[in-house]
Amino acid sequence: MKRKCLEENQCPIARSLNLVGDWWTLLIIRDAFSGVRRFGDFQKQLGIAKNILSTRLKSLVEDEILKISYEVEGGHGEYLLTEKGKALLPVLVTLAQWGEAHTVWPSEGSQVVDAVNLQPLRLVQLVAQDGRVLLPDEIATKMLSSDSR
Amino acid sequence: MKRKCLEENQCPIARSLNLVGDWWTLLIIRDAFSGVRRFGDFQKQLGIAKNILSTRLKSLVEDEILKISYEVEGGHGEYLLTEKGKALLPVLVTLAQWGEAHTVWPSEGSQVVDAVNLQPLRLVQLVAQDGRVLLPDEIATKMLSSDSR
Repeated sequence: MKRKCLEENQCPIARSLNLVGDWWTLLIIRDAFSGVRRFGDFQKQLGIAKNILSTRLKSLVEDEILKISYEVEGGHGEYLLTEKGKALLPVLVTLAQWGEAHTVWPSEGSQVVDAVNLQPLRLVQLVAQDGRVLLPDEIATKMLSSDSR
Repeated sequence: MKRKCLEENQCPIARSLNLVGDWWTLLIIRDAFSGVRRFGDFQKQLGIAKNILSTRLKSLVEDEILKISYEVEGGHGEYLLTEKGKALLPVLVTLAQWGEAHTVWPSEGSQVVDAVNLQPLRLVQLVAQDGRVLLPDEIATKMLSSDSR
């Protein structure tokens, strides 16, 4: 599932995709945000084969995106998002906003909303340090060596 | 590569992943943002097998994320991002910001910056219609039927 060639890639997008760059992984994280915690519940939600789910969950725990909690009565382990995992929410929301705008809605479709008033969020904007909203051609990449960080 | 089961999924994240949910696809789009346009240049940048690249580019054109332009001298087709493709930039930037914060930087690593002053962007925030910055547990999903949209 992972690719050695991406692990030490100079580009942070490539390094991120190495950890979360497949359908199932991001859908598991999505379900964790919506409160799914148990192996069987992930399986039911996603309609995913046990062995595929098991591999993905194991990787997500190894990569410290999920952690296993055994604090629940009954002894079943539960998968919880770590802080590193919760930090993926903007990735999921931008994917959701793109999907809402650019894919065909089914007859019943879900939308990401503000939990307080159930209104859609503002569209995510890319903003410079001085507050300018940036368009695609106003964004670049620069190289940093380890001693300049 | 695509999964029929995701195409008509109620969740816009799942529908988006159906179109852009693999490493190569998102890396091709990343390179398109940085100005790569030709088959051979994508291949060189990504170190990807011709047949894999060819399949991904074909899908991206079919899904109207890339378009082929034949307007260049010499007759070589060039792959350009459509508006739908350009709308994926927030997904790439949130992946980059997560990777910058949560993966191990190599000795030389790239960073997404403001093209004007080469400073990093502000971290993407999730904002409600009334301007509140939303935390993970302040975000929900709601179902919409086709006649309420």
